Amino acid sequence: MASGAGLGRIDGRRRDQIRPVKVTRNFTKHAEGSVLIEMGDTKVICTASIEEKVPPFLKGKGAGWVTAEYAMLPRATHDRSPRESVKGKQGGRTLEIQRLVGRALRAVIDTGRLGERTIWIDCDVIQADGGTRTASITGSFIALADAVGVLRKKDLIKVNPLTDYLAAISIGKVGGQVMVDLAYEEDSHAEVDLNLVMTGAGQYVEVQGTAEKTPFNKKDMDEFLDLGWGAIRELVDLQKSLIGSLS
Amino acid sequence: MASGAGLGRIDGRRRDQIRPVKVTRNFTKHAEGSVLIEMGDTKVICTASIEEKVPPFLKGKGAGWVTAEYAMLPRATHDRSPRESVKGKQGGRTLEIQRLVGRALRAVIDTGRLGERTIWIDCDVIQADGGTRTASITGSFIALADAVGVLRKKDLIKVNPLTDYLAAISIGKVGGQVMVDLAYEEDSHAEVDLNLVMTGAGQYVEVQGTAEKTPFNKKDMDEFLDLGWGAIRELVDLQKSLIGSLS
Amino acid sequence: MASGAGLGRIDGRRRDQIRPVKVTRNFTKHAEGSVLIEMGDTKVICTASIEEKVPPFLKGKGAGWVTAEYAMLPRATHDRSPRESVKGKQGGRTLEIQRLVGRALRAVIDTGRLGERTIWIDCDVIQADGGTRTASITGSFIALADAVGVLRKKDLIKVNPLTDYLAAISIGKVGGQVMVDLAYEEDSHAEVDLNLVMTGAGQYVEVQGTAEKTPFNKKDMDEFLDLGWGAIRELVDLQKSLIGSLS
Amino acid sequence: MASGAGLGRIDGRRRDQIRPVKVTRNFTKHAEGSVLIEMGDTKVICTASIEEKVPPFLKGKGAGWVTAEYAMLPRATHDRSPRESVKGKQGGRTLEIQRLVGRALRAVIDTGRLGERTIWIDCDVIQADGGTRTASITGSFIALADAVGVLRKKDLIKVNPLTDYLAAISIGKVGGQVMVDLAYEEDSHAEVDLNLVMTGAGQYVEVQGTAEKTPFNKKDMDEFLDLGWGAIRELVDLQKSLIGSLS
Amino acid sequence: MASGAGLGRIDGRRRDQIRPVKVTRNFTKHAEGSVLIEMGDTKVICTASIEEKVPPFLKGKGAGWVTAEYAMLPRATHDRSPRESVKGKQGGRTLEIQRLVGRALRAVIDTGRLGERTIWIDCDVIQADGGTRTASITGSFIALADAVGVLRKKDLIKVNPLTDYLAAISIGKVGGQVMVDLAYEEDSHAEVDLNLVMTGAGQYVEVQGTAEKTPFNKKDMDEFLDLGWGAIRELVDLQKSLIGSLS
Amino acid sequence: MASGAGLGRIDGRRRDQIRPVKVTRNFTKHAEGSVLIEMGDTKVICTASIEEKVPPFLKGKGAGWVTAEYAMLPRATHDRSPRESVKGKQGGRTLEIQRLVGRALRAVIDTGRLGERTIWIDCDVIQADGGTRTASITGSFIALADAVGVLRKKDLIKVNPLTDYLAAISIGKVGGQVMVDLAYEEDSHAEVDLNLVMTGAGQYVEVQGTAEKTPFNKKDMDEFLDLGWGAIRELVDLQKSLIGSLS
Repeated sequence: MASGAGLGRIDGRRRDQIRPVKVTRNFTKHAEGSVLIEMGDTKVICTASIEEKVPPFLKGKGAGWVTAEYAMLPRATHDRSPRESVKGKQGGRTLEIQRLVGRALRAVIDTGRLGERTIWIDCDVIQADGGTRTASITGSFIALADAVGVLRKKDLIKVNPLTDYLAAISIGKVGGQVMVDLAYEEDSHAEVDLNLVMTGAGQYVEVQGTAEKTPFNKKDMDEFLDLGWGAIRELVDLQKSLIGSLS
Repeated sequence: MASGAGLGRIDGRRRDQIRPVKVTRNFTKHAEGSVLIEMGDTKVICTASIEEKVPPFLKGKGAGWVTAEYAMLPRATHDRSPRESVKGKQGGRTLEIQRLVGRALRAVIDTGRLGERTIWIDCDVIQADGGTRTASITGSFIALADAVGVLRKKDLIKVNPLTDYLAAISIGKVGGQVMVDLAYEEDSHAEVDLNLVMTGAGQYVEVQGTAEKTPFNKKDMDEFLDLGWGAIRELVDLQKSLIGSLS
Repeated sequence: MASGAGLGRIDGRRRDQIRPVKVTRNFTKHAEGSVLIEMGDTKVICTASIEEKVPPFLKGKGAGWVTAEYAMLPRATHDRSPRESVKGKQGGRTLEIQRLVGRALRAVIDTGRLGERTIWIDCDVIQADGGTRTASITGSFIALADAVGVLRKKDLIKVNPLTDYLAAISIGKVGGQVMVDLAYEEDSHAEVDLNLVMTGAGQYVEVQGTAEKTPFNKKDMDEFLDLGWGAIRELVDLQKSLIGSLS
Repeated sequence: MASGAGLGRIDGRRRDQIRPVKVTRNFTKHAEGSVLIEMGDTKVICTASIEEKVPPFLKGKGAGWVTAEYAMLPRATHDRSPRESVKGKQGGRTLEIQRLVGRALRAVIDTGRLGERTIWIDCDVIQADGGTRTASITGSFIALADAVGVLRKKDLIKVNPLTDYLAAISIGKVGGQVMVDLAYEEDSHAEVDLNLVMTGAGQYVEVQGTAEKTPFNKKDMDEFLDLGWGAIRELVDLQKSLIGSLS
Repeated sequence: MASGAGLGRIDGRRRDQIRPVKVTRNFTKHAEGSVLIEMGDTKVICTASIEEKVPPFLKGKGAGWVTAEYAMLPRATHDRSPRESVKGKQGGRTLEIQRLVGRALRAVIDTGRLGERTIWIDCDVIQADGGTRTASITGSFIALADAVGVLRKKDLIKVNPLTDYLAAISIGKVGGQVMVDLAYEEDSHAEVDLNLVMTGAGQYVEVQGTAEKTPFNKKDMDEFLDLGWGAIRELVDLQKSLIGSLS
Repeated sequence: MASGAGLGRIDGRRRDQIRPVKVTRNFTKHAEGSVLIEMGDTKVICTASIEEKVPPFLKGKGAGWVTAEYAMLPRATHDRSPRESVKGKQGGRTLEIQRLVGRALRAVIDTGRLGERTIWIDCDVIQADGGTRTASITGSFIALADAVGVLRKKDLIKVNPLTDYLAAISIGKVGGQVMVDLAYEEDSHAEVDLNLVMTGAGQYVEVQGTAEKTPFNKKDMDEFLDLGWGAIRELVDLQKSLIGSLS
């Protein structure tokens, strides 16, 4: 399969072009924040749930907590994957992703302003076509902002604890070309895969680059970061248009 | 809370009236059958996945298998429920429901005609408002029929293994009144709760009645079964209009 | 194997005839209630243990709790079954049965009168020949009554919290014939299997009917319930003769 | 509590006197060997189950295997102990005991003569009053012999693989006095506790002595072994009278 | 392989001769007691960690606790053994050993003098060549003494809670000869294997003798205990020279 | 604590200076490769074990596999951490690290040349003072090379499958200053933490940068990568001097 190789991309996109993004807020009715984010054929439900207590290590310290969990429906993928509850534990990939999502969101929230409460982020992939972890981050930020909005509407917090917008994108080197927002087919042929999480101000929160097939050099790295920021800027613009200012 | 009591229902429905039903086929792209079923605010993704092998106890016997798994997204419910993969096992309620779904579907499929393959049914509740197990059964039957359709289109099976339609409904006694398709608020006040699974021909596949608060009598039972069949007939009609004949 | 088919039953019983029942109270010495119940070759040890605390969700509410656990000795069955403690979890069938036993017993006990304590019911099948879950319910009720007797003798509760007797029986359709109290050999050939739990007053607590091979109709259902009540009445008479009145 | 101290034992036994022993063979009907052994108030069901295969490490080597599992019913003890299947694993004490039982039995069976099959020993304590592990060994030997008898009756093995009788007893030092076959009340006050497994020929298979409170000396040790052999000889005599010769 | 048979031992040692022992204190820097013990090629890191709380069953009783855990690095052994954290549970052998280590140490510590704190002993085998459990006990005693020393230096305890020295050795019968401190190669051919734990005063704390291949008699037993004490005396002398007096 | 802030580092090192490195090969005797790597007070045992089979997904494909597992001794850290085998599962951090180690090593080995065998890498931290994952990678590469050497000496592989050297280092921004090879005390105050894995040729294999406290910018990133390569070059030089050329 020569997908991703040569001059063009499998779906005709430019190398710096992200897939169509669609965000549906209030996708389900119970959660304080509930977002369906679609990036091309990747679809993730991100909910934010407020719990009026904090983990033991934070008790009595006046600060809150944000934590995330991630899962895929068994048939979100091309072949059915066994359910982790049946296997009796979450796999390494799942734990890695949910740790990343939680850590990234905590980088743009002042937990002191949140008060002694936890916001649980749940990212459930209902259809996977590459980039589920980055879509989870971008979508979860919106769900988190909506949950914060609920707390502010109820006057439970005075000042917005969110300090900046937060979005993420994957960048890869496929067939020698650097490109953003890889679909699954592209991702599975990538020589290098980099996940980038950035703030609205253009600062790095997470940079996770992996040589899947071939080690890469500084020139590649610079191009990854450059293209990545271009894509993230678009996602942040979308977040701004949906959420408004963070003041 | 006097909900469900007195003359009317919380949403003004008649006692024998089911909630608006909406079925979206091909809801996700990878599964051979993929259905989003909505009954009022209860929303379940039912997928059917074909695997070209059977469990050990069926190996070499020329027959196939249908099995089901069930889960709820953590925030499908009013309060967030812990993820079963994090707890390290499926709970009793989950196991009970998925055993019910699998057993019910196997009652209307001739596994000998299916060939040595397994169809995995996955029911994932994305929003819960009562009746998730019955919605799972009604929706899964359609996903199963779609997966069977894929096998027939590929000429992998000659004769339709489905022997009848299959749908399910909950019936309850709330505030002394018998009513069908209970929403969560009604269900939580029910004296008796009965889940009914029936074939298109009006035969019983599963009858599971439980006195939640008050034991019940034969007259109640007759009314449960009578009202239940009325509701199931509507669901079967919908299945027929979507799937067509089973020949 | 034509067992169960035709005119008679494998052991010559009438269709409405239960197997010989034997109840040994105080079967073991430590438990507050300890019953060995034998229904034909099915033998279950049912113990009731009093614990002076309640689960978290009941703390401080002034009410008690009754809960049940169920297991089979590995060689209670024809072939040895793996020990669930070795497998690391209870199976779906086990969880289903113990949830049923606990729920059924709670239907005939006024937990407000029990005080803030838990009664643990343990049903351990030492020999299985069909109907282990129904024997567990019938036997556990007696163990529960004995444990309640201990509490009353110690003046720890004033009014009998038991509101009625409780017994259970299996009914099946085997070779086209409806019959009660199926032995394993009959059960394994049954087209339909129904477990019925009723109070001494003849009201339904649980009705769980399953089409194992062939869906069934209303006439079958009526016959199941009718025959079932006949059998349960005998078991309740036995309970009355052992326990005496519930006042 | 001065139990065990001073001149006498709590139940008036002599220091070298075992409790009344009762063995019921064919206690349950499915197992090839099924024994209820009672030593005073300690009651254990020991079954032996034949499986026509061996563990992977023995495949194709022409030899058989004997392995044991041990459990206590939750209310076999004075206070109810949590079920290990619910806790999700067998505890250290359980594993230690079942390893001991299996190892001890393997010391008196020539697995080469057994053929490529496994005999599973299940020891399930239904009432505990001290000495459950030693009763398990003594009773399991009889169940094992009965299972071997089944194999010989079917002509599946030619020569008796059992090379000697096998029995076990506990010995303890309580209140400064050495005594055999400790009841729970004595055991819980013991300074030293020793479990002894011996063959019919009077040889040692296992000697497990533990200073529970006070280290002990060689004179104690000699007395433990001496008294222990006296008790084991009685148990072996009982085994001989039940099983007959091992030729 | 005729190892261990005949006149000599595989490494030329006398039957009563232990392997070269080397103890490195303060082997790692964080633990209050940290000992690398080497007995020939068997190498175990024993650490003692002080925790200022006790298990629930000791809360408020004014006494402390000593408990032990044991593990082997996957490649401590000739063939790599699977990691127990990956398998999801500790095996029976591991649990047996760590229960033995903890129990043995508790026999020489007056927990009342320790105060309400726990000392955690961790024995991690980095290279195994027979006798890992006995080396763990001998080494852990030194780590425990060092941790006690830390508490005394901080004036957290007034009187030395250690009541005697404690060491352990394995003794075996190999090729008909009784010998001490078996290397793995000898151990794997032993007819009998006995682990002995004794105090500095020459009293028994644990005697665990197992007939691996052939039951043994009283004469063997006496020889095991005699040779064992000779070896343990050497280890106790080493402990004395390192730790000094226990006053 | 002002550690790491201001002009100097806690141990007086320059910002671009790594801690003293010490590598002990053949640290334990059973493993084909066995390395103790010490970077300052961080000490990790890295073993490489050869297994003559591959995971199922590689069976029959003619290629080999390299996989890694990671753990810390309970008291490798300042406070004792619970043993993962006791908790019943590996934590997210552990899984993340061992996935990283395995992935990184696979980037410099031509698994086709390895033949159908697996090399298991085990990284066991016996003392932790920051940078355990990077020390694990650097040390494991040497253990892997030694295991490859064993295979070549036995003529089991013809051509060296290692395609380049591989080492790793941590870089952080602490108190506004970028520095390499953070000790634990520095790491716990870092605003940004980046782990870098590079080949001997100076190409990137993994870049994992995380804003622990403050998002960072491109200038920081460039400095991280620049300083990191300086440190890794030293480690690669050490590897070359130990292993020699890879031809």
